Amino acid sequence: MAERTTVDEHAAQVRELLSEALSPRPETVALADALDRVTWTEVLSPVDLPLFRNSQMDGFAVVASDISAVPVQLPVVGTIAARAGRPEALRAGTVVRIMTGAVVPDGADAVVPIEDTSGEGESVTINRTRSAGEYVRERGSDLHAGERLLPAALRLAPRHLAVLAAAGISEVEVRSRIRVAVITTGAELVAPGQAAGPGEVFDANGIALEAAVRSCGAEVGFVARNQDDDPESLRTSMVEATASADLVITSGGISMGDYEVVRELLEPLGARVGSIAMQPGGPQATGEFNGVPVVSFPGNPVSTQISFEVFVAPLLREAAGRPAAVRRNRTLAGDLRSVPGKRQFARGRSLDGERVEVVSGPGSHLVAGLAASDVLIDVPLETIGLKEGDTVETWAL
Amino acid sequence: MAERTTVDEHAAQVRELLSEALSPRPETVALADALDRVTWTEVLSPVDLPLFRNSQMDGFAVVASDISAVPVQLPVVGTIAARAGRPEALRAGTVVRIMTGAVVPDGADAVVPIEDTSGEGESVTINRTRSAGEYVRERGSDLHAGERLLPAALRLAPRHLAVLAAAGISEVEVRSRIRVAVITTGAELVAPGQAAGPGEVFDANGIALEAAVRSCGAEVGFVARNQDDDPESLRTSMVEATASADLVITSGGISMGDYEVVRELLEPLGARVGSIAMQPGGPQATGEFNGVPVVSFPGNPVSTQISFEVFVAPLLREAAGRPAAVRRNRTLAGDLRSVPGKRQFARGRSLDGERVEVVSGPGSHLVAGLAASDVLIDVPLETIGLKEGDTVETWAL
Repeated sequence: MAERTTVDEHAAQVRELLSEALSPRPETVALADALDRVTWTEVLSPVDLPLFRNSQMDGFAVVASDISAVPVQLPVVGTIAARAGRPEALRAGTVVRIMTGAVVPDGADAVVPIEDTSGEGESVTINRTRSAGEYVRERGSDLHAGERLLPAALRLAPRHLAVLAAAGISEVEVRSRIRVAVITTGAELVAPGQAAGPGEVFDANGIALEAAVRSCGAEVGFVARNQDDDPESLRTSMVEATASADLVITSGGISMGDYEVVRELLEPLGARVGSIAMQPGGPQATGEFNGVPVVSFPGNPVSTQISFEVFVAPLLREAAGRPAAVRRNRTLAGDLRSVPGKRQFARGRSLDGERVEVVSGPGSHLVAGLAASDVLIDVPLETIGLKEGDTVETWAL
Repeated sequence: MAERTTVDEHAAQVRELLSEALSPRPETVALADALDRVTWTEVLSPVDLPLFRNSQMDGFAVVASDISAVPVQLPVVGTIAARAGRPEALRAGTVVRIMTGAVVPDGADAVVPIEDTSGEGESVTINRTRSAGEYVRERGSDLHAGERLLPAALRLAPRHLAVLAAAGISEVEVRSRIRVAVITTGAELVAPGQAAGPGEVFDANGIALEAAVRSCGAEVGFVARNQDDDPESLRTSMVEATASADLVITSGGISMGDYEVVRELLEPLGARVGSIAMQPGGPQATGEFNGVPVVSFPGNPVSTQISFEVFVAPLLREAAGRPAAVRRNRTLAGDLRSVPGKRQFARGRSLDGERVEVVSGPGSHLVAGLAASDVLIDVPLETIGLKEGDTVETWAL
């Protein structure tokens, strides 16, 4: 990787590296676990919907021609509830009480709502005429067996699960979730909640990457923090990580200093470790371990988070059928110093629909600044500096 | 509840009924479980960020005044890695190798990146002058102890979890999730995946309500299907549901027919059961059981889903800090028959940014039609009919 590798070139390389790992695979899940998953194929209905001809109202199933002149008093021969069972056919000249959703008996061709009747007992007076078909839901009037219930590549919302259930389907084939392993590295790291001595910092990257992966619709099956500056210790973590993951993300250990543990382990295995024209997030690496792709970010927490957003998040969202992060132009509310020769992702806060102000400086340690942002401001490589009123592209966080 | 209760009146009544159940309570969760939760209070930083003065680059910590004329060769007295430990103070006239993130020693006031040096060994040649403060991250330069890390009522994204972790915080106080119990009723119901005989239908409401509740950021702790037309059996389910839920949602059993099991159980306990000027979803009920509010929807699956979206979803989203469903005006792509005296929620499909077409009919059994929709078309009470080109308000599904 040459020093001047661009963001777009590195993004294309990450996409290429991950193309097989992120290519969809099918998985069958129960409906209760299928919310927000993405259909693998279109789903055809195994049944007619409704399953049988049924009543739209509480009232009386009738032969329409019996009530062409009203009022008319007719004998009530029974009651059909909404429950299992096949009712007897209705004889002309009689009516049967019927509940919403209950089977309309053969012979009957309309339902008279209860509010259009009076004097119910052994007979009932029908006060309003109804035509054949009124208040009757015909079998298959919503959808016929063999018709498409749901298209392929659909992210399943509650209403989609409802129609699957209504058709008697209890599980659905969906795209498998991408399984990501997260390994943070750095001898200076301690877990949040523990005590940090001199020279130690709390590991923000583990939780940030885990949450970010989940936000993109992928799952995190393995998280490790590697506090040894020992490639062999990292190797042990990588063996465990790659046993089940489609993709490993690491943070730290890939720059030009000493104790670059990710570089030391992966470079001899063929990883490309280098620097790209980007700030923050210059050092970047891609490689493989046990045949599983590894994408490595620098360890500064802002660099890690922005690297994930730029290089991996778009691919994971795509794989999970999630919408891409919104990119739109806004107007700068102040000047923005840029770094010549680097594409800068400055942290911004949108002020209204149109404007954006810069939050904090460019430093890759400014985690509070990033937390206070809601967009990244994409400052192109060739830009020397931006002024208040300039138009910039922003990426929603 | 009078026949002419409006949607807005019933919505206000549901809001009133649920106000205490949905009023926020605090709960402490680990960061790994805090994604998408909502901060209870603002969070102040217990520490300075960065925790200590550290190097922004791999290079050499120097006394800036020693390198005011370059090139200059200076002795290298050691290496400071990014790891636990407090380095010795740097004596003027010497430099120390330093890694990114490592403690800048007392005495040093600048870092020279490795690329601005040459001939490293027992000494190193500095080829570029640097001012005091360059490439040094001052303690607290991101945020000082006692300053606000995060505001109250913030929905936690990965970058927010990152700054909490960076400050050493391992758990956070958030709004508790609303716990919802779902009970579907109907003697005609069978579970999806089982066989449905004559008169039986698959229960779509259980999965639809469970998924819809989760989509709103609440949790479902109890789901039951009540296939007996027996209020005592429902009572048993309600006792179990109300043992842990903030809110119970039921479907079915509240209209004017026979075997209205929810009505039979709850009306004697003071529930308001009636009909509102809405289609679909006319029958509606509100009550309490064991002091827990109960919101009851009609059993037709489209009625259930739209009732949830209209009456309960806005409240759950609000409680969970989720954005409200987008409502916007669109242009009708065809005529729409309306029902006088009822506010109709027709199913629509947005055709482009601006237009919407009606999907399927008004029937409350048309689950496939609802699944094929992406908006509800809100047709006001007083509307007699709508024509192609008319403007309608749509609610995103």
